[in-house]
Amino acid sequence: MTAQATSVLRIGVIGAGIMGSDHAHTLRRSVRGAEVTAVADVDLARALAAASTENGEGARAYDDAHALIGDPSVDAIVIASHDSVHAEQVVAAVRAAKPVLCEKPLAPTLAEGMRVLQEIGATGDALLSLGFMRRFDPGYVQLRAAIDDGTIGTPVLVHNISRGVSGAPNATSEFSITGSAIHEFDVVPWLLRSPVVEVSWVAPRRSSQVHEGLQDPQLIHLRTADGVLSTCETFLNARYGYDIRCEVVGETGAISLTEPARVRLDAGQRHGIGYAADWRPRFADAYRIELQAWVDSVLAGEPTPLATGRDGVVASAVAEAVITSMHEGGRVTKVGQ
Amino acid sequence: MTAQATSVLRIGVIGAGIMGSDHAHTLRRSVRGAEVTAVADVDLARALAAASTENGEGARAYDDAHALIGDPSVDAIVIASHDSVHAEQVVAAVRAAKPVLCEKPLAPTLAEGMRVLQEIGATGDALLSLGFMRRFDPGYVQLRAAIDDGTIGTPVLVHNISRGVSGAPNATSEFSITGSAIHEFDVVPWLLRSPVVEVSWVAPRRSSQVHEGLQDPQLIHLRTADGVLSTCETFLNARYGYDIRCEVVGETGAISLTEPARVRLDAGQRHGIGYAADWRPRFADAYRIELQAWVDSVLAGEPTPLATGRDGVVASAVAEAVITSMHEGGRVTKVGQ
Amino acid sequence: MTAQATSVLRIGVIGAGIMGSDHAHTLRRSVRGAEVTAVADVDLARALAAASTENGEGARAYDDAHALIGDPSVDAIVIASHDSVHAEQVVAAVRAAKPVLCEKPLAPTLAEGMRVLQEIGATGDALLSLGFMRRFDPGYVQLRAAIDDGTIGTPVLVHNISRGVSGAPNATSEFSITGSAIHEFDVVPWLLRSPVVEVSWVAPRRSSQVHEGLQDPQLIHLRTADGVLSTCETFLNARYGYDIRCEVVGETGAISLTEPARVRLDAGQRHGIGYAADWRPRFADAYRIELQAWVDSVLAGEPTPLATGRDGVVASAVAEAVITSMHEGGRVTKVGQ
Amino acid sequence: MTAQATSVLRIGVIGAGIMGSDHAHTLRRSVRGAEVTAVADVDLARALAAASTENGEGARAYDDAHALIGDPSVDAIVIASHDSVHAEQVVAAVRAAKPVLCEKPLAPTLAEGMRVLQEIGATGDALLSLGFMRRFDPGYVQLRAAIDDGTIGTPVLVHNISRGVSGAPNATSEFSITGSAIHEFDVVPWLLRSPVVEVSWVAPRRSSQVHEGLQDPQLIHLRTADGVLSTCETFLNARYGYDIRCEVVGETGAISLTEPARVRLDAGQRHGIGYAADWRPRFADAYRIELQAWVDSVLAGEPTPLATGRDGVVASAVAEAVITSMHEGGRVTKVGQ
Repeated sequence: MTAQATSVLRIGVIGAGIMGSDHAHTLRRSVRGAEVTAVADVDLARALAAASTENGEGARAYDDAHALIGDPSVDAIVIASHDSVHAEQVVAAVRAAKPVLCEKPLAPTLAEGMRVLQEIGATGDALLSLGFMRRFDPGYVQLRAAIDDGTIGTPVLVHNISRGVSGAPNATSEFSITGSAIHEFDVVPWLLRSPVVEVSWVAPRRSSQVHEGLQDPQLIHLRTADGVLSTCETFLNARYGYDIRCEVVGETGAISLTEPARVRLDAGQRHGIGYAADWRPRFADAYRIELQAWVDSVLAGEPTPLATGRDGVVASAVAEAVITSMHEGGRVTKVGQ
Repeated sequence: MTAQATSVLRIGVIGAGIMGSDHAHTLRRSVRGAEVTAVADVDLARALAAASTENGEGARAYDDAHALIGDPSVDAIVIASHDSVHAEQVVAAVRAAKPVLCEKPLAPTLAEGMRVLQEIGATGDALLSLGFMRRFDPGYVQLRAAIDDGTIGTPVLVHNISRGVSGAPNATSEFSITGSAIHEFDVVPWLLRSPVVEVSWVAPRRSSQVHEGLQDPQLIHLRTADGVLSTCETFLNARYGYDIRCEVVGETGAISLTEPARVRLDAGQRHGIGYAADWRPRFADAYRIELQAWVDSVLAGEPTPLATGRDGVVASAVAEAVITSMHEGGRVTKVGQ
Repeated sequence: MTAQATSVLRIGVIGAGIMGSDHAHTLRRSVRGAEVTAVADVDLARALAAASTENGEGARAYDDAHALIGDPSVDAIVIASHDSVHAEQVVAAVRAAKPVLCEKPLAPTLAEGMRVLQEIGATGDALLSLGFMRRFDPGYVQLRAAIDDGTIGTPVLVHNISRGVSGAPNATSEFSITGSAIHEFDVVPWLLRSPVVEVSWVAPRRSSQVHEGLQDPQLIHLRTADGVLSTCETFLNARYGYDIRCEVVGETGAISLTEPARVRLDAGQRHGIGYAADWRPRFADAYRIELQAWVDSVLAGEPTPLATGRDGVVASAVAEAVITSMHEGGRVTKVGQ
Repeated sequence: MTAQATSVLRIGVIGAGIMGSDHAHTLRRSVRGAEVTAVADVDLARALAAASTENGEGARAYDDAHALIGDPSVDAIVIASHDSVHAEQVVAAVRAAKPVLCEKPLAPTLAEGMRVLQEIGATGDALLSLGFMRRFDPGYVQLRAAIDDGTIGTPVLVHNISRGVSGAPNATSEFSITGSAIHEFDVVPWLLRSPVVEVSWVAPRRSSQVHEGLQDPQLIHLRTADGVLSTCETFLNARYGYDIRCEVVGETGAISLTEPARVRLDAGQRHGIGYAADWRPRFADAYRIELQAWVDSVLAGEPTPLATGRDGVVASAVAEAVITSMHEGGRVTKVGQ
C-alpha cells in the first residue's frame, strides 16, 4: 500500500537445492523484516528459479557464491550449499562482515570446523549462527521448558528416534552420524543443559533394503556430564514415514513429543494419522521461527538465540567420537579425545 | 540493518483488549509487511500499553477510534473493539477508503449487519474482511482439502464440538450462539462449500455451575443445501479445557481434527496431553496466517482470501434462525425467513 | 485329568448362525461351569456344525427349537435365532422352567414384547435375561463407574456413535433403530441410571452407497428423566470399520471409550490402529463376561446381573417412539405414549 | 444347577501372596475346568484367607507346601511361592507326577535351574510349565503374528520399556535383571523366534529416589541369533505408573503395543488415560488366558503351549550374562559362556 522507510534485512541465499529454495521461500512469505535480494547456486538455472518469485519481483541470481557475498545489496547470508563448501563460504561471509546463518555442518570434519572457528575469531563468533532448527521446534521447546520446570523430576534417560523414508543412495554409515544423528548431538545437550562427554555405537541388524556399505539403522548412546544416558536410533531408510521422536524420562515422570498431525483419518479399516515424506513439513514451524529469530536479532544488532559456530563444532566432536566408536567395535569413547 | 524503501502496510488497531492486543503483538512480531502505527481504545491507558513495544518504538495511542481511522499514517484498520461498535467503525473505515479487517460479528444483529453492507456498498465489499480465523487453521484447511480430494467420499454428517473453560459471567443463551457457535456457522458451509439453509436448537441438561439465565451447553443442528447435517455442541463452561473438535463423516471414511498438543506427559498415573485455558494458543497459527494473508493481499492490491462482510451477514442469518428455533421450542427453522 | 462331580450348567443354544455359533464357542472355551449339550437350527447342517467340537465330543443337534427346549439334558437356554421367533422360544423355555438368555430383541415389536412379559409373568421375569452385552464391556463399565464416582461432575450430555462396515442388504430404516440403535437405548439409561422419556429423530444426508429404502446414517436424540440429552449416530454402512464410541460430558469433565486396539502400526506413511470388520472382536470380552455372569448366577440360584425382559421391553418402547418420530417428520415424541 | 460328572482339574496353589491369591481367584472365577482344592503358604492365615471363597466352599489350607503336593485331591500345582523355594517345590511336584505351573524364576540362579532340569529329566520336562504370561497377552500375541505375517518386513530392532511405580524397598540391581527384565529376556526371543546370544548392560543416571545399592533405571541390549538388536529399559521406580511398551521395527514398518486403557478422561486441563498402579490389571487378560491354556492342555493330556522349564533356564542364562556385563563395566557378553 505504502512505500516507507523501515528496517529490512537484505538476504542472500547460497544454495538453491531443496533446503536453500525452502529457506528463500520462507523468508519471502513468512518472515517479517526479511528480503531475499540474491540467490547463488553452482547451477545458474537453479539459482534463477529460486530467485524469481510469483509476482515477478525477483532477486539477483549468481553461479558464484563469492560474488553473492560481495554484493552490496546483500546484508546477511544464508548458507544452504553443499556441505563441502560451507567452511569457505562462512569464512568469506565473515570477512565481508556479514551475519551468516549456515546450515549444519559447519565443516565436514571436526578439524576443519575448528580451523574455521580459529580463522574467523571473535568477530566471526558474533556473526555466525548454525542452523540447528530443532531448538526452535515448538515441541522441543516445550520439552525443555518442562525439564526446567521440574515437571518430570531430574532427568535420567532420553530416548531419541529419527527415522526417514529413504536416505541418499550413496549415504555412508558415517553420513548417518554426521548428517542425521548430529541433530540429536545438538538437541540433547541443549535440552539437558549439559554437554555430551562420552559416546558409544552399536549396530542393529542391517536392513537388507540398503546397499552394503551402509549400516542402517544405527543405535548411539550419549552420556552427558550430568550422568544422563541418551539413546539415539538413526534409521535413514525406515520406509514407512519421516518420524522424529524424543522422550525425556525423569525421576517422577516422562515427557515426549507427539506426532504433529493436524487431522486423523478413518478409512480402509484403519484409524490414524499421516507421516510426512521428509523433514520439511515436520520442521516447517521450526525453520520459520528460527529464521524470524535470526532476522530479528540481526536487525536489532543483538546476539542471535540460534546455535553458534561453537555449538556446531561441539556437535561435530560428538560425531567424531561416535565414528571412532563405530570403527573400534562400539567401545565407549570420550568426546574430544 | 539497512533502512530501505519497501512495501509496508501501516495498520491501526481499534480495541486494546485481549484480542486487539494479541493482534497488535502478532502483527508486530510475526507478520511480514505489517507495521502497527496506531492503537485506539476507549480506555487510553490500555491503548498506550498496547501501542508501546519492548524496544520502545511505539505506535500512536488514541481513545477515539474515529481519530485513528482518520490518521493519515494508518493505511488499514483492524477492528477488535466491543461488538456493539463494530458496525459504525466499519462504516467509518470504508468511508475513509481504508481496508478493514473486522473481528466477528460485523454487527450485533442480522438487520444491522445488512444495513452496514447496504451502506458500504460495492466499495465496502472490496475493502471489508471478517475475522473468521478458523478458515486459516491448518487443521480445518486439511479437512477441507480432504473433502475436496474425495478422501472420505461424499460428506453426510459433520460433528462439531466447542468447549471452553468458563464463559463471560454475564453471557446469555443468545450469546452462546452469536458469539461462540457463529464460528461453526461460518466454518461448516466453508468446509462443505454449501450454505446453511435450515437449523434447529435443543437444550441438553443445563450445567448447574452457571447462572440461571444461561442454557449451557447447547446443541444445534445445521442443514446445508447439499443435505448434509451438522451437529454443533457449544459448551462455554465445560471447565476441563478449551477443546475444539470437528469430524466430517463421509460415505467411505471420516476425518477429524487432532488435539494440537506438541508434547505428551506421563505423570501421576496419567498419560496425556494438556489443554489450553482459552482460544488463543489453540488458534495462534490461524490468527498469524490469517493476518499475513490479509496484509499480503492488501499490499498486492488483490481481493483478500478472508471471509467477507457478506459471509459475516450470512453467519448472522444462521445465528438468528437458531435463536428463533431456541425461542420456539426447538422447531426446525429456515435460514433467512 | 479327573472326572468329578461338580456343578455344571448344561446349555442348549438355539440358532447356529454367526451369533449362536459364537456363543457356543465362547461357552465351550472360556466360560467355567458351562457345557453346551445341544444346538438347534432350522438348518440341521448348521446345527450339526456348531454342535461338533474339535475334540469330537459334540452336543446333540436339532432342527427344532422346541425339541431342544424339551431335552432333559438341557438345563438352560441361549436364544440366538432369527428375531421373529425369539418371543415364542422364550415362552416355551419359561414354560419348561428353564433359565433363558435371549439375544435382543425380545420380540419384533413393543406390543409383542409386552405380551411375552405378560404371558411369562413373575416366573418368567426370574428366568429371563436379555443379551445387552454392552453392560459387560469393560469400557462401558468404567464409564458408569466414573459417572458414579463424580469424576466428571453431573452428566449433561452423552454422544454415541455406532458405525458398521456394511449392513444387511435388505436392512430398512426401521431396522437401524430396532436392530442397531437399540443397544444405545439400553446402555444410555443404564449408564445414567435414568430412563429415556422423550426422543426425536433426524436424517443426515443419505449415503448413496445404500439402497433407496434405507436412511443411513440416522441421528437420534434421547432425553432421560434426569434431563440429560444423548445423541446417537447410527451408520450401518460407514465402510471404514466397526467403530463404537461413547462420550459422557459432565459439568466438570468428560469421559469416553478408547479404541480397543492392542497394537499400533507404522506403515505406508500412516500411523494408526486397525478396526474390526464387525462387532464380534469389539465385544468379545463383553460376551464372555456376560455369559460367565449368567452361568455363575444361574448355578448359584441367584438373580442374574444381566438385562431383564423388562429392560428389553423398555428399550423397545424407546425404539417405537423413535420410529414414530421418524414417521412424523422428526417431532419430539414421548416414550410409551 | 446340575451336579454332573465332567473333567475338572483339581489345583493346589502354593503361595498365598499377591500373585498366588490372584491366581486362585482367577482359576475360581474365570477358568473353565479348574477347581482350587488346596492352598499352601508358610503363613497359614494367608493360606486360609486365599482358600476360602465368598460362597463358603473353601479349599483345604496348608502351611506346608509338601503336604499340599502330596494331597490326593490335588491333580496339578501352581507355584507362586517365594522365589527361593520354587526349585524344590517343582522337584517335589514332578516326583509326585503332577503337572506344575511355576511362576518365574525356576530357580534363583542359572546353575540351580539347570540342576532342577537335570533332576526332573524328561518326565519333568513334560510336566513343567513356566509362568511367562506375556506370551499370552493379546498385544504381544498380535505383535508376533504381525512379524510372522511380514507386516513390517524383516525385524531389525526391538525397543522394550518396562516401568513400575515403586520396586520392593530392598530390591538390588541384580533383582531388576532376574526379577523384572527377565520377562523381556523371554518374550523377545519368543517374538523373534531367535535365541539371545549376546548381551550388554549400561547404567543411565541413577534415580535419587532409590537407595544407593540399586541402579535404577537400567538399560540392557540383547542380540538375538538373527542379528536383531533389542533394547530393554527397566525402571522399577518410575513413579508415574506401570507402563510396559514394546516396539518392533522392521525393514518396512514398525509395530508396537498400545496403552491398554478402555476409557479416556478430559479433566483438569488434561486429556488422557490412566495407568495401573501395578502389573496385575495390565496383565489380567494374559494371566487368565495362560491359566486357561494350561488347564485345557493338562485336561486334554497334551503338551502345554506355555513356556517350558527349558525356556526358564534359557532366560536365566541371559540374565546371568547381563549381570556379568553389569559387573564388568558393561562389556558385551556372550550368553551361556
